[in-house]
Amino acid sequence: MSDVLGPGPKTRVRRLPTKANYERDVIFAVIDEAPLCHVAALVKGSAMVIPTLHAREGDTIYLHGSPSNAVMKAVVERGEACISMTLYDGLRLARSGFESSIAYRSVVIFGAASLVTDDVEKARVLDMFVDAVLPGRASEVRAMSDSERRLTMVVTVTIDEASAKLSSGPTDDPDGDLELPVWSGTVPARIQFGTPIPDTNGAMASGTIPVPASVKRLLDSQ
Amino acid sequence: MSDVLGPGPKTRVRRLPTKANYERDVIFAVIDEAPLCHVAALVKGSAMVIPTLHAREGDTIYLHGSPSNAVMKAVVERGEACISMTLYDGLRLARSGFESSIAYRSVVIFGAASLVTDDVEKARVLDMFVDAVLPGRASEVRAMSDSERRLTMVVTVTIDEASAKLSSGPTDDPDGDLELPVWSGTVPARIQFGTPIPDTNGAMASGTIPVPASVKRLLDSQ
Repeated sequence: MSDVLGPGPKTRVRRLPTKANYERDVIFAVIDEAPLCHVAALVKGSAMVIPTLHAREGDTIYLHGSPSNAVMKAVVERGEACISMTLYDGLRLARSGFESSIAYRSVVIFGAASLVTDDVEKARVLDMFVDAVLPGRASEVRAMSDSERRLTMVVTVTIDEASAKLSSGPTDDPDGDLELPVWSGTVPARIQFGTPIPDTNGAMASGTIPVPASVKRLLDSQ
Repeated sequence: MSDVLGPGPKTRVRRLPTKANYERDVIFAVIDEAPLCHVAALVKGSAMVIPTLHAREGDTIYLHGSPSNAVMKAVVERGEACISMTLYDGLRLARSGFESSIAYRSVVIFGAASLVTDDVEKARVLDMFVDAVLPGRASEVRAMSDSERRLTMVVTVTIDEASAKLSSGPTDDPDGDLELPVWSGTVPARIQFGTPIPDTNGAMASGTIPVPASVKRLLDSQ
């Protein structure tokens, strides 16, 4: 397996190429850390983008949605998808507005898309989505029913090419700006999870069902 | 000015319509809180999506980028853009995988796009981007030079229609699942900014340039 996923004809980063990265491991790390992605497709002659959840297994990205979802339908009909994940890592505040921006890690992926139709495979992938939202959660919840599985469209996207763009660390002020009396630096940002808010209906009303291991691990990891 | 931006032919939410919202104020709040957006355009016959920064003024979304950026060029050439912003608000953990998801606030916007060519207007909008990254920052940095302005393409997108989708609060388990001995609830998430990391080059090496008001306000607000 090649160590890189690009650059290809669609993914060569032209603007700020020093921030570009095509390594598989770097791209996969961004995909896996991102809690959601944005998917584009051609709908009625125009490009359309929507947010959705994703799961990854090797070079395959899985998407899912309602069978009535216009973007998902278009992805399947055209057999291709463009997907982007972006992690917001804070601020990079330069001495000039031109050099100021955010810190981020992003990927853009192009891949061949097709519908997952096999019931066993669909059930397996749908569990992957539950674990993508929160690792370990799939084994804690009620198993998916046949009707729930039928209500969900699962799409597989095999990565053809992908690129990452990574921006972090000290700002890139040109030499001519360095002596300006302007504060410059980075302000890191990360996602912080707060105290779980238990539901209060049904069996949860008793207050005796403990916070599950999946949630504990998430909170302990931060 | 109408209070709603949709639904229109492109933005009617079909899946989970109870989460849909078309109110201008709700849509604007998501746009303004989002640190970045994803923009889709038709590039060489395929839909492509990239992350980028945005600024909003009334019903207008501004985008900017390198004049070599394929998506930005396509947006201008076709005179239309589809833009999505999504805020990740944590986990909504139901008793079933089917009902489990993330908490989020998202918008999808369709608009008419055109290039901003007037130099004075371009300079004004570019300052808006600096303040969109961090409110108040534009007045703290060196003013933009003519050459910097020429290196940047600014695009205006007038919102034609838009929709928001909001998901929060207790989970939506069906009655049949309520008595299952499975913990359910939400785990809130938010962006947490950390301690600023000052640059150490140029005038910053002295360690005497104080953290600016814009950064102080950001940290005080959380």
